[in-house]
Amino acid sequence: MINAIGRDIPEELLVNGKRVYQGKNALDGTYVQRVAPQTRRAERPVESKICTNIREACERCGAHDGMTVSFHHAFRNGDYTASMVMKILVEEMGLKDITIAATSLGDAHDLIAEYIEQGKVIGIQTSGIRGRVGETVSSGKLKSPAILRSHGGRPRAIQAGEVHIDIAFLAAASSDECGNASGMGGKSNCGSLGYAIGDSQAADHVVIITDTLVNFPNIPSSIACEDVDAVCVVDAIGDPAKIASKELRFTQDPRELMMAEAVADVIAATPYFVDGFSFQTGAGGPSLAANHFIEAHMRERGIHMGFALGGITGAVCSLQQKGLIDKLVDVQSFDLTAIKDLGENPNHVEISASQYANPANKGAYVNKLDFVVLGALEVDTDFNVNVVTGSDGILRGAPGGHPDTAAASKCSIVVTPLTRGRMPTVCEHVVTVTTPGDCVDVLVTEYGIAVNPRRSDIAKCLDESGIKHVDIEELKNRAYELVGRPDDLEWEDQVVAMVEARDGSLLDIVRKIKPLVL
Amino acid sequence: MINAIGRDIPEELLVNGKRVYQGKNALDGTYVQRVAPQTRRAERPVESKICTNIREACERCGAHDGMTVSFHHAFRNGDYTASMVMKILVEEMGLKDITIAATSLGDAHDLIAEYIEQGKVIGIQTSGIRGRVGETVSSGKLKSPAILRSHGGRPRAIQAGEVHIDIAFLAAASSDECGNASGMGGKSNCGSLGYAIGDSQAADHVVIITDTLVNFPNIPSSIACEDVDAVCVVDAIGDPAKIASKELRFTQDPRELMMAEAVADVIAATPYFVDGFSFQTGAGGPSLAANHFIEAHMRERGIHMGFALGGITGAVCSLQQKGLIDKLVDVQSFDLTAIKDLGENPNHVEISASQYANPANKGAYVNKLDFVVLGALEVDTDFNVNVVTGSDGILRGAPGGHPDTAAASKCSIVVTPLTRGRMPTVCEHVVTVTTPGDCVDVLVTEYGIAVNPRRSDIAKCLDESGIKHVDIEELKNRAYELVGRPDDLEWEDQVVAMVEARDGSLLDIVRKIKPLVL
Repeated sequence: MINAIGRDIPEELLVNGKRVYQGKNALDGTYVQRVAPQTRRAERPVESKICTNIREACERCGAHDGMTVSFHHAFRNGDYTASMVMKILVEEMGLKDITIAATSLGDAHDLIAEYIEQGKVIGIQTSGIRGRVGETVSSGKLKSPAILRSHGGRPRAIQAGEVHIDIAFLAAASSDECGNASGMGGKSNCGSLGYAIGDSQAADHVVIITDTLVNFPNIPSSIACEDVDAVCVVDAIGDPAKIASKELRFTQDPRELMMAEAVADVIAATPYFVDGFSFQTGAGGPSLAANHFIEAHMRERGIHMGFALGGITGAVCSLQQKGLIDKLVDVQSFDLTAIKDLGENPNHVEISASQYANPANKGAYVNKLDFVVLGALEVDTDFNVNVVTGSDGILRGAPGGHPDTAAASKCSIVVTPLTRGRMPTVCEHVVTVTTPGDCVDVLVTEYGIAVNPRRSDIAKCLDESGIKHVDIEELKNRAYELVGRPDDLEWEDQVVAMVEARDGSLLDIVRKIKPLVL
Repeated sequence: MINAIGRDIPEELLVNGKRVYQGKNALDGTYVQRVAPQTRRAERPVESKICTNIREACERCGAHDGMTVSFHHAFRNGDYTASMVMKILVEEMGLKDITIAATSLGDAHDLIAEYIEQGKVIGIQTSGIRGRVGETVSSGKLKSPAILRSHGGRPRAIQAGEVHIDIAFLAAASSDECGNASGMGGKSNCGSLGYAIGDSQAADHVVIITDTLVNFPNIPSSIACEDVDAVCVVDAIGDPAKIASKELRFTQDPRELMMAEAVADVIAATPYFVDGFSFQTGAGGPSLAANHFIEAHMRERGIHMGFALGGITGAVCSLQQKGLIDKLVDVQSFDLTAIKDLGENPNHVEISASQYANPANKGAYVNKLDFVVLGALEVDTDFNVNVVTGSDGILRGAPGGHPDTAAASKCSIVVTPLTRGRMPTVCEHVVTVTTPGDCVDVLVTEYGIAVNPRRSDIAKCLDESGIKHVDIEELKNRAYELVGRPDDLEWEDQVVAMVEARDGSLLDIVRKIKPLVL
């Protein structure tokens, strides 16, 4: 069935009430019956929930073949916990047919790729899918199609009962013996536990994995002991130094700086750039650098930001320290500076992924967002964005908060170089749609700016401010002139991944690429 | 059917899976399937959820005949909100057959008694039931028996689907336009919103009633905007000066001081009185005064308290300021000093009623409690306690956290004068059992101390410390000598209230008293 963005979704995937994408906000105002976990009563007091090892915790929580387990990715590439737990489940306990519902998977999870190959892991539900896991899923070795969701789509799916987590294994920088757990106060602080909070409330069983045990009660905590079945103390849960990937450093690339300046100029030209505005940037070079140029516009106008949202970086903390931002609203602390700030600054507050971006709650923070600046692997002439498959068709990205912030913000700006290597970034049809074109307002490249025709109001603002912009076709043509029109990818029939829109409908699918040599 | 404490529960009440009380911790370790609300998706961004008045909010949330509404009692006798909302529902909107599931009802709610008499309010579920509401229910004018629950039993019942809240009307000292709401930061601060938090997560619809609107985002907040449908701004939500009832003043009564000293001596004689111990007091005179005498024992031993739990008072805040307590864990701020402290002191932390005392979660704070000191209206020779019906059989009390803390703490101490006026407090059979005798360890009166025979370990400790104690029969006999054996109350058949044990089973019933002259 062809969906609202023209993608053909195989009928066999449209089961159990699954629908195809019908456009932005198609479900707004309708009601959803949420589900809740089945949990074990702890009426009789126990002094401690500490298990001598992870295996004991798994047994206490009824780990079994065919179960779904969850992990969070606050440690990003420095995560030790998911692999540590999976190794015990598969190698020590001999469990099989496991589905992993992680908030993101990446380079820290090569071992999981191995278990996919062995057929022990049969399902993957995630936002990010990178590294060997992405390659393995792309090669068709996972028994069922992976399900890719945005950060807001995941808590929506959990609350709607589309994901049922049997055991959530949640890394926490500190915990007491009863499971009051935090991303702070330990030897491996990761900052916000925004992605873990919802899992702690929704999973049948919750195991806290920590390397720093503190006195009861460990409060304020992000995860409450009332939701925790077991606590395991391990040597190390992750490496905070690997939370910030290289993209988080401030760019010195003149092309990226030029784009960042153009982004700031676009923002300053809109009617939303007034005192108290709100803002989110992604983690890419030009997105991050946009903070710097926006600061100049804010000082010129004498305005300040009401709140900055999302993955919080040291760059944003620095703007707040200068008195330019009231509140930092943190679903994920993106670097060591942000982590430290969360622990010290009362105006830097953690929120859950559901609070952040869930489209089925009663109003997420993204709904109050004026501007978001986002990256892209590809953008097509319908303004559809791909952030999940590479130009080779292989899974190597993450929807993350991209579709959520793009859909809900008043002005969403995608910034990307026109070409990468020999590949055009602006193209006729993206390989995979992860954010629909009706959610993307402005595209900024080093060769020019294009405004989505749906947003003639923004085009008019740019005209009034003397900011040049062109038809996106021109940008695509220019890209093709520079690097040539890419050959079409060739696919096999097998669907290896489904891209869910944030409302749970099917936005796109990813098929097995042909030929794929690992 | 006769339950584990010998009370006869009429068979007609044992429907829909309702069971009779089978003893402490009968359900421990079993699983419960929780329920979740049906909620309205707010996918399309809106700037504000503010309604021009409460009626508009009610209409937006689908207020209808036969619905269940909820309120919290953080303002205690100073609450304006429940009556304000009920007046609109009944008098402006003409709604009927309403069930009120409040966390407590008292002297501020005479209007609700009026609506019970009119037959507009047909169900009451509450902890506290006092004043005209108590008299009206006792007189048999409510269409169905009232359901009385402990503070831990209420969130348990909500999570189990035994209470389904259509609309929660939650007073908040401050809120932003999207419903991030707090008990602090306004002109009528009530401190902890511990009782409101669970309702905000469990009700189909949530309306925040505030008198102080602040900028978005109002964070940190106790109630998250993702759970809120509508926000109403009114002139005043309550009178914080009426939060502290007269019982919260430090007693000067020599009899009460003597009992308080005995309580502290008992505590100091047990093996739980070690560095890092935990403690909760009720709001009665001798309970509160016990703080003073415990301080002396702590200083003598050179130990400090790990955490103080429950309704937090200025007396407890003062102990913390002296360095004698690590953390204050606050489900309800009991006076203006405690309210102010919650806003300023990072080691004074709000928790929800479920975190506090829910016996069906994975471990409530009460489970970590060493000592609790509680009051009583009556105690019988089986150590059963009544805190809900007066000696005249009329509803005028509140189980509150009494049954929860008594059941879960390592040492529960009930302190009460042996007689009140012409009535014996220690008696053969309490009028109504609200806390079962197997949960009460020690009884302290001005005429002596009795230890529950189930706790021979504690009796031995008292013996070793030279603290005299007697058989509870002796105390009862002494009381009867002083004021005579009271006549049996005479009842009609009609059941006017059911007392639920914290696990949801039926502990006792209250019948209509005969004759009752209002």
